Amino acid sequence: MITRLSTLFLRTLREDPADAEVPSHKLLVRAGYIRRAAPGVYSWLPLGLRTLRKIEDVVREEINAIGGQELLFPALLPREPYETTGRWTEYGEHLFRLKDRKDNDMLLGPTHEEMFTSTVKDLYSSYKDFPVTLYQIQTKYRDEERPRAGILRGREFVMKDSYSFDMDDEGLEASYQAHRGAYQRIFDRLGVSYAICKATSGAMGGSASEEFLAVSRNGEDTFVRATGGDYAANVEAVVTQPVEPRPIEGQPEAVEHDTPDAETITTLVDWANSAGVRVDDREVTAADTLKCVVVKVTEPGAEDPELLGVLVPGDREVDMKRLEASLEPAEVTMAEEADFKKNPFLVKGYVGPRGLAANGVRVLADPRVATGTAWITGADAKNRHVVGLVAGRDFEVDGFIEAAEIREGDPAPEGQGTLTLERGIEIGHIFQLGRKYTTAFDVQILDVNGKRAIPTMGSYGIGVSRLMAVIAEQRHDDKGLNWPVEVSPYQVHVVVANKDQAALEAGEQLAAALDAAGVEVLFDDRPKVSPGVKFKDAELLGMPFAVVLGRSFADGKVELRIRGGDTLEVAADEAVAEVVELVRG
Amino acid sequence: MITRLSTLFLRTLREDPADAEVPSHKLLVRAGYIRRAAPGVYSWLPLGLRTLRKIEDVVREEINAIGGQELLFPALLPREPYETTGRWTEYGEHLFRLKDRKDNDMLLGPTHEEMFTSTVKDLYSSYKDFPVTLYQIQTKYRDEERPRAGILRGREFVMKDSYSFDMDDEGLEASYQAHRGAYQRIFDRLGVSYAICKATSGAMGGSASEEFLAVSRNGEDTFVRATGGDYAANVEAVVTQPVEPRPIEGQPEAVEHDTPDAETITTLVDWANSAGVRVDDREVTAADTLKCVVVKVTEPGAEDPELLGVLVPGDREVDMKRLEASLEPAEVTMAEEADFKKNPFLVKGYVGPRGLAANGVRVLADPRVATGTAWITGADAKNRHVVGLVAGRDFEVDGFIEAAEIREGDPAPEGQGTLTLERGIEIGHIFQLGRKYTTAFDVQILDVNGKRAIPTMGSYGIGVSRLMAVIAEQRHDDKGLNWPVEVSPYQVHVVVANKDQAALEAGEQLAAALDAAGVEVLFDDRPKVSPGVKFKDAELLGMPFAVVLGRSFADGKVELRIRGGDTLEVAADEAVAEVVELVRG
Repeated sequence: MITRLSTLFLRTLREDPADAEVPSHKLLVRAGYIRRAAPGVYSWLPLGLRTLRKIEDVVREEINAIGGQELLFPALLPREPYETTGRWTEYGEHLFRLKDRKDNDMLLGPTHEEMFTSTVKDLYSSYKDFPVTLYQIQTKYRDEERPRAGILRGREFVMKDSYSFDMDDEGLEASYQAHRGAYQRIFDRLGVSYAICKATSGAMGGSASEEFLAVSRNGEDTFVRATGGDYAANVEAVVTQPVEPRPIEGQPEAVEHDTPDAETITTLVDWANSAGVRVDDREVTAADTLKCVVVKVTEPGAEDPELLGVLVPGDREVDMKRLEASLEPAEVTMAEEADFKKNPFLVKGYVGPRGLAANGVRVLADPRVATGTAWITGADAKNRHVVGLVAGRDFEVDGFIEAAEIREGDPAPEGQGTLTLERGIEIGHIFQLGRKYTTAFDVQILDVNGKRAIPTMGSYGIGVSRLMAVIAEQRHDDKGLNWPVEVSPYQVHVVVANKDQAALEAGEQLAAALDAAGVEVLFDDRPKVSPGVKFKDAELLGMPFAVVLGRSFADGKVELRIRGGDTLEVAADEAVAEVVELVRG
Repeated sequence: MITRLSTLFLRTLREDPADAEVPSHKLLVRAGYIRRAAPGVYSWLPLGLRTLRKIEDVVREEINAIGGQELLFPALLPREPYETTGRWTEYGEHLFRLKDRKDNDMLLGPTHEEMFTSTVKDLYSSYKDFPVTLYQIQTKYRDEERPRAGILRGREFVMKDSYSFDMDDEGLEASYQAHRGAYQRIFDRLGVSYAICKATSGAMGGSASEEFLAVSRNGEDTFVRATGGDYAANVEAVVTQPVEPRPIEGQPEAVEHDTPDAETITTLVDWANSAGVRVDDREVTAADTLKCVVVKVTEPGAEDPELLGVLVPGDREVDMKRLEASLEPAEVTMAEEADFKKNPFLVKGYVGPRGLAANGVRVLADPRVATGTAWITGADAKNRHVVGLVAGRDFEVDGFIEAAEIREGDPAPEGQGTLTLERGIEIGHIFQLGRKYTTAFDVQILDVNGKRAIPTMGSYGIGVSRLMAVIAEQRHDDKGLNWPVEVSPYQVHVVVANKDQAALEAGEQLAAALDAAGVEVLFDDRPKVSPGVKFKDAELLGMPFAVVLGRSFADGKVELRIRGGDTLEVAADEAVAEVVELVRG
């Protein structure tokens, strides 16, 4: 079926929408793919819906190919299963809650572990039924605090979520790897540039976890890549490279000094250098100082927070996201004025590891604070610091923690050079969830020995509607969109840019011939629109190929324009064959 | 791709679910197509989802074929557009309402006139853009008071809703007829037995309106059909055939009688016959009496109800649904004890048309109460009735009304014999909505003369998920489901019912050959399941065709079973060709 621009329900806009900041948002609205209905809630206009469905189909094909079975759960769900796992409460304000006419609590599903797990429990009972992988492509709901960038972070969005159920860990590993491969094939087919990042498992619980991040400077997530290998990771998941312990013997004794007005790292370094302190026969830098950050940690179920001292080299900040990830599921906040008042041994600007330990505060250190390393740090008294405080001699720590910020140039693991920092958009997440949900729902399966066993789960998500924005984000230029053939709403855009009736008729014939050859045709047959406007629209809408019947049509020639690439002049009677070849890739 | 019962996520049940009353509900649950998640909210298991998607595709193809353009609005919607039309309030408890984290009112869309209309307003401005037909296939939400029968009346359900926009009434009529034809093709392709019923336009406003009702004794709607023609109508839409006026002259005078304890039609008829009253020289029947029913009518916006007298022949009840439809949008309730006390002229059991008129109560009569007809009715005093009260002589009415019940055997219009009463399930509704919504949203379009004009709308719905239940309802037998080829989850069910390894291998080869021939195969390869159980499952699941490799396989033969029909024995090497022929129909 040929779609004609003379009748297509579409209005392209020359102006960017006022609320749009990132290119994908601007272009998808201007090109009439999506339309805002409410904050973070979008309507899919005809072109947008076609693209969305094609992305869904690519995802569906690849998940089917690894044995996934598609089903579909409701979006409107009862409270009970989410009460069983505690997520009715844990989701907080992110959950859309409502009541039905009988005052029953209901919710709009943000993710469906509960439904999948309880359904498997109801249907399956023997190890012979396993493994099984189930999935859905579904509209989901999350009441984001800051919905942004159109469909990049919406409150109503389309997601593919799959779940694997295996009887043992080896099975889970195989299911996980199958999904990992399927995800690579999906994102490759969609032409997305991405990195697979080691991730912390987050609030979902579980062990192995990787995120697929589309590389984009408008991404919300920061990740690292190795300059000399394929290592990539979420900032939260980066493991600091081990530092060799140093011999303690022979190191000078720690000496306390008066350090008036040296409450910051900068002023402390200045004091040290003006006082002639030397480290390894060189001037002192911030990296020689030890920052002792005091935070409050609330374990789940605990009423009151406990103090925690976090030690990091003075040239680095504590990265709260990394700290939180390390301490999950506990909640972390910075110690406040009131905490300092309540605990007089915490002398602001002069906190040191000895004072913390002496007062029963747990102390966790950055791995760089290895045994035998010497530091300039607080002496737990106003205007006093200590020089040459040696880890393992003058103070002990209760353990190590990943909390310091990651820097461009930090060493990458396994000799893969150094790390670069990049921005990305999460497009997929796979992880080994384990038995958290199957335990919560008491899924008892008879194993090969006739004993009850609890299956282990993997959970795998793809942001389907978000992918459409990601493709637009990675592939646009200043003129408009540029879809890969696989998901373009139409494969070719036929433009009649010649007022002659003969050109219009030839356009009709060309569109019909392309259609007959199995090519999806968008046909700009608008009689009273100028060639300039038609060209602008074609670039904005972003079909991968356009055939233009323009000035040279009188000479039996048409233009074959590759979006974002070359323009070729071909004989009109060869246009169909050329386009078919291009479309087939 | 071959789907194997050894791995398909499915458990068939031998027992009916406790909450199921109608066959489609029982069978769809037992056969593992759907699963209850909450009252009126169902999950689509793999077989059910495949069937649902195929029904959607049939609907999509036919709506595309009449030029419909598919888009997709959100299910989560802001309050404002529904406030513009008043439906935020009018929907009452049927609407799922919720608040987001910023305390904004939102709703789950029950139908989308508001969204379509406001989007057309935003995108289109000239008559040249019209006509346009837009549609979506979408998950909708209505908080039904009594969700019932599984997916027959759910609270989350899939609907196709389309809307036509035309500049004039002729255009609307053409769009309406195009949809009418598409609906007939859709229901014919789905193998549904249905009637097209004239309908009242209901709360939506508008004029011409027809409902497509699937014939089913488990239907909630009653409709009539003519014995001698294609007339069909909702009970609410049946127009009583006109009764000829009789000459008033020469009729005997009305005479009042003491009629103790004759407060019901039955006792009144008994009294009349024991008192020797004759009508046209025969005994009195209930049809000779006139029932005066007093109701209260509240017009929209009015604070208080007004009394209304409704006159119907004594052998018929007032059908409240018909009365309500006739008085829409007013609300109607029966007069209560308190109303009789407050209005002493209303003598219960003895109300007559004269007393109503004398006290300023509006009186509307059934069309059978034609001028010159004579009646036995109340005399507005305790224990008093009047005989021979002639319409147009002894009392006047303020008009006529369709309020009396419809009976099997009533005359059909235009000489099409008599009416039969049937039960049906609404599967589609088309109607000419007119300018109600375009006016509410002030959609101003420049017409051919450059003047502003308001386009006129048609609205057309199909209950897509309900259709799946309807097909199951109309086509099952006591053994299970029986899908038409067009929407069956798989086209053929291959059953290995023979323990020989050779039979299993032949089954594999047959399934592969069918798959290669483009047939969708469900393959029962379960090694340890008895033939009896496999046959029962095959009948329950309801694929239209099954190939059984059973006892006669040793002789090179297989059984070809047509669900609900014949079983043929065919040579194993001809099975693929035979099945392909059956599937192609």
